[in-house]
Amino acid sequence: MAMYRGGMPRTKGDHEARRRDVSAAVWQVMATRGFAGLTLRSVAAELGATTGLLTHYFPTKQALVEYALDLLEQRTVSRPRRPTGEGLAALKDALLDILPLTPEATDSNRIWVSSWDTALSDPALSADYARKYAKSRDRLTERVAAAQELGELPPGNPAQIAAGAQAFILGLVVQALLDPPAFPPPRQVELLDDYLAALTAAH
Amino acid sequence: MAMYRGGMPRTKGDHEARRRDVSAAVWQVMATRGFAGLTLRSVAAELGATTGLLTHYFPTKQALVEYALDLLEQRTVSRPRRPTGEGLAALKDALLDILPLTPEATDSNRIWVSSWDTALSDPALSADYARKYAKSRDRLTERVAAAQELGELPPGNPAQIAAGAQAFILGLVVQALLDPPAFPPPRQVELLDDYLAALTAAH
Repeated sequence: MAMYRGGMPRTKGDHEARRRDVSAAVWQVMATRGFAGLTLRSVAAELGATTGLLTHYFPTKQALVEYALDLLEQRTVSRPRRPTGEGLAALKDALLDILPLTPEATDSNRIWVSSWDTALSDPALSADYARKYAKSRDRLTERVAAAQELGELPPGNPAQIAAGAQAFILGLVVQALLDPPAFPPPRQVELLDDYLAALTAAH
Repeated sequence: MAMYRGGMPRTKGDHEARRRDVSAAVWQVMATRGFAGLTLRSVAAELGATTGLLTHYFPTKQALVEYALDLLEQRTVSRPRRPTGEGLAALKDALLDILPLTPEATDSNRIWVSSWDTALSDPALSADYARKYAKSRDRLTERVAAAQELGELPPGNPAQIAAGAQAFILGLVVQALLDPPAFPPPRQVELLDDYLAALTAAH
C-alpha cells in the first residue's frame, strides 16, 4: 500500500487510523526480522510510506524501539486468554496462553524472544524485564498454591514450583519457534501435559 | 589497546595472534551488546584498531556475523565439560554444562540467546539451528534411555523426556540471564534438581 505519500493526516479519525497502521507495520517488521531488523526504513517499506513520514512518528531509532516495546507489552496484556478453570487447570491454562499455538501467538513470542537481546543490552530495560517476569512468576505462584490447596499438586514451595514451570514454558517457546515442524501445537501441549503430570507425581 | 594501527601483520605468528585478538574482541562485543550491536565499528573500538583494518578480516557485515556464529559454535563445542557419570547423573551433568553457572558460561549463553533472534530472521540459519538443537536432544535422549535402563527414570518415550528437559534448561538459562539476582547459581542447580526429582517420580 502507498496510502501515506500524500502527507499529514487531516482529521482525528485519519490520525487514529494511521497510528493503527503504523503499529501494524512495526509489529509485522518485528515478527519477521526481530528488533535487529527494526529500522525506520523497514517500517516505512512495510507501510508503503516514506522514511520522512515515519520520522514524524519516531524522531529517532530509540523512539521507534521504545514504541515497539510498548506495543509488545500492550498486545501481550490485551491478548485473548482462555477462560480460567480452577486449581491445576488454571495453571495449565496460564501456561497454554503463553505457548505459540496460533499464528498470532507465534508472532508475539517471536518478538518476545527478539526483545530478550534488546533487554540484555540495556541495564534499565533488563531491570524492567526482570520485574515483568517476576510478576508473571507471582501469578503462576498463586495458581500453584491454589492447586496445592485443592490437593492437585503435592506440597512444596509454590514460588519454586512456579519458577520451574516458567522456565519450562519459556524454553518450550524457544524450541517451538526454532523448530516448528518438530514442535507442532499438539506436541507442545503433550509436553506441557507430561510436565504437569511429573509435577503432580513429585513428592 | 591500540596495537593495530600500525598496519598489516608481518609474520605467520603475528597473524595468528591477531586472529585470536580479533576473536576475543568479537566475543566481547557479542557478550555485551549481542548480535544487534555487532558492527565493524564496535569490534574495531574493542580491539583499539581502525575500522579499515577490520575490513581486511571482514569485508562485509555478513562476513562478520558468519564469523561470530562460527566462533559461538566452536567455543560451545570446545567448552570445558563435567566429567560424566552414569545414567541420571550423566543427564544432570549434561544439563549443568548448559546453565550459566560461571561468568564464561553466562557470556556464552547470553550470545546464544542473542543468536536466536538472528537465526529466526534467516531461514537457512533457522534450519541449521533446528538441526543443532535436534542433535542436542538426541544426545540427551541417549542419557535418558541409559538412566531408564538403570531404573533411575521411569519408562516412557526417552525422546519426549529429552525434549522436555531441553525446554526446561533453555528456559532456565533465559530466566537466569534476565534476572541474575533471582537466579544465582545455587538456585539454578536447585531448580534443576527439583525438575529431575519430578521426572524420577513421574509414572
